[in-house]
Amino acid sequence: MIGIFDSGVGGLTVVKEIFKYLSDYQITYFGDTARLPYGTKGANFVIRYSKKITRWLLKKGVKIIVVACNTSSAWASDSLKKEFKNIPIFEMISPAVKEAIKTTRNKKIGIIGTPGTIKSGAYKKKLIKLDSDLKFFSTACPLFVPLVEEGWIDEKVTKEIIKKYLLPLKEKNIDTLILGCTHYPLLKEAIAEVIGKKVKIINPAESLAKKLKEFLENRPEVKNKIKKGSKHKFFFSDEPYNLGKISHLCFNKRIKPIIKDPF
Amino acid sequence: MIGIFDSGVGGLTVVKEIFKYLSDYQITYFGDTARLPYGTKGANFVIRYSKKITRWLLKKGVKIIVVACNTSSAWASDSLKKEFKNIPIFEMISPAVKEAIKTTRNKKIGIIGTPGTIKSGAYKKKLIKLDSDLKFFSTACPLFVPLVEEGWIDEKVTKEIIKKYLLPLKEKNIDTLILGCTHYPLLKEAIAEVIGKKVKIINPAESLAKKLKEFLENRPEVKNKIKKGSKHKFFFSDEPYNLGKISHLCFNKRIKPIIKDPF
Repeated sequence: MIGIFDSGVGGLTVVKEIFKYLSDYQITYFGDTARLPYGTKGANFVIRYSKKITRWLLKKGVKIIVVACNTSSAWASDSLKKEFKNIPIFEMISPAVKEAIKTTRNKKIGIIGTPGTIKSGAYKKKLIKLDSDLKFFSTACPLFVPLVEEGWIDEKVTKEIIKKYLLPLKEKNIDTLILGCTHYPLLKEAIAEVIGKKVKIINPAESLAKKLKEFLENRPEVKNKIKKGSKHKFFFSDEPYNLGKISHLCFNKRIKPIIKDPF
Repeated sequence: MIGIFDSGVGGLTVVKEIFKYLSDYQITYFGDTARLPYGTKGANFVIRYSKKITRWLLKKGVKIIVVACNTSSAWASDSLKKEFKNIPIFEMISPAVKEAIKTTRNKKIGIIGTPGTIKSGAYKKKLIKLDSDLKFFSTACPLFVPLVEEGWIDEKVTKEIIKKYLLPLKEKNIDTLILGCTHYPLLKEAIAEVIGKKVKIINPAESLAKKLKEFLENRPEVKNKIKKGSKHKFFFSDEPYNLGKISHLCFNKRIKPIIKDPF
């Protein structure tokens, strides 16, 4: 199976993109709802639990790990790659960064995410490493996650909050915007309306799904180990809040959660 | 010491009221920021961690427990009272409920809180038990906590969100409104503006502080065991997000957090 983990339900937007690009592989998902959100937690905490979850997913028989949580990707993916050397580990940041660099024309890139992701500077560091001429402007948008979880996708108040966070970025004349949190793609239309047509929006979940597809095409020995089929399993460490709303927004149907806190 | 715990920083509004009514007692505070918010967690999880925290506070030498978190009060306080029989345990709900009943004239009471508190029906159950003629109307307001933590107390968008949640309650002609979450008193002025002057707002933190004062006046044997002084300690199980903003809103100064996850 492909093992995917996130701090909660946001990673389902990553599953959505993986289904789009790799429809026939079996997924085991773990959402750490007992400890969410990771975005306002400290780095050590996020590393500790990312390792625990990875170990648990490997015991369940997954052959690939997708770190669907941006905060975990930012803080824990290097530690995970060091500790679990024999397993391919994908994270949210690198594929999005590469796509943003290919996309931008004026070299001005905006990044939005949770306070944790923004504070970590992870997107910024990877962007600079690949192209030191880039300019970027980042903003933490802590209200976006609860807005999505409330299902307020099209509300007037949502657009006003988006304006409050994004107009300062627009003024910087960015031409590319990275949605650095798994919940944010569900606000993509409203964000596009505020930020304007000239700005190309990068959904890291889509960049990752494309990269994963490419990887499997080039590595048949890994590809052949992954179970096919549609017996996907969705574990959550505590009852997820508004799972119905989010899974409808992602898949147009309800998913059946398995509630289990292994830690 | 008086031991106070909450899922995060919201309980500081309870400390604020306790300082107002009982200024000379030493406080040991524990904010479970590693696992916040409790409001969207399941009952078993909240009970399990409330017990762990209570045990830990007792080891620190506290002589009274204040469950400052409404979700813990709703789901865990009965279990705590059963397990820790020799220690006075105060929770947020009973004092507020009694004050609401004394306050209402038309017997129509509104309750707002996190999804967890509202789903538990704890306020409703205690109100009905004391006066079965009461009518109540409750609404979960999950956006309020992140708004407060963002420090957006006076913003236009905050008032619009308050309207979205509270106008349906206003239409029910309530004359009393219980702020069933520790963060909400920081929005009290904006809430009062939306809900109108005719509605009396109950801050459970204040009701609790008054009750605690009364209890200590009647129980000198407990009172004499509690250390006096201003060496308050504020423990958090993970770095608290925007502690500076919240502690300024509560105490007009910064507090020094001790970061430690004992679990």
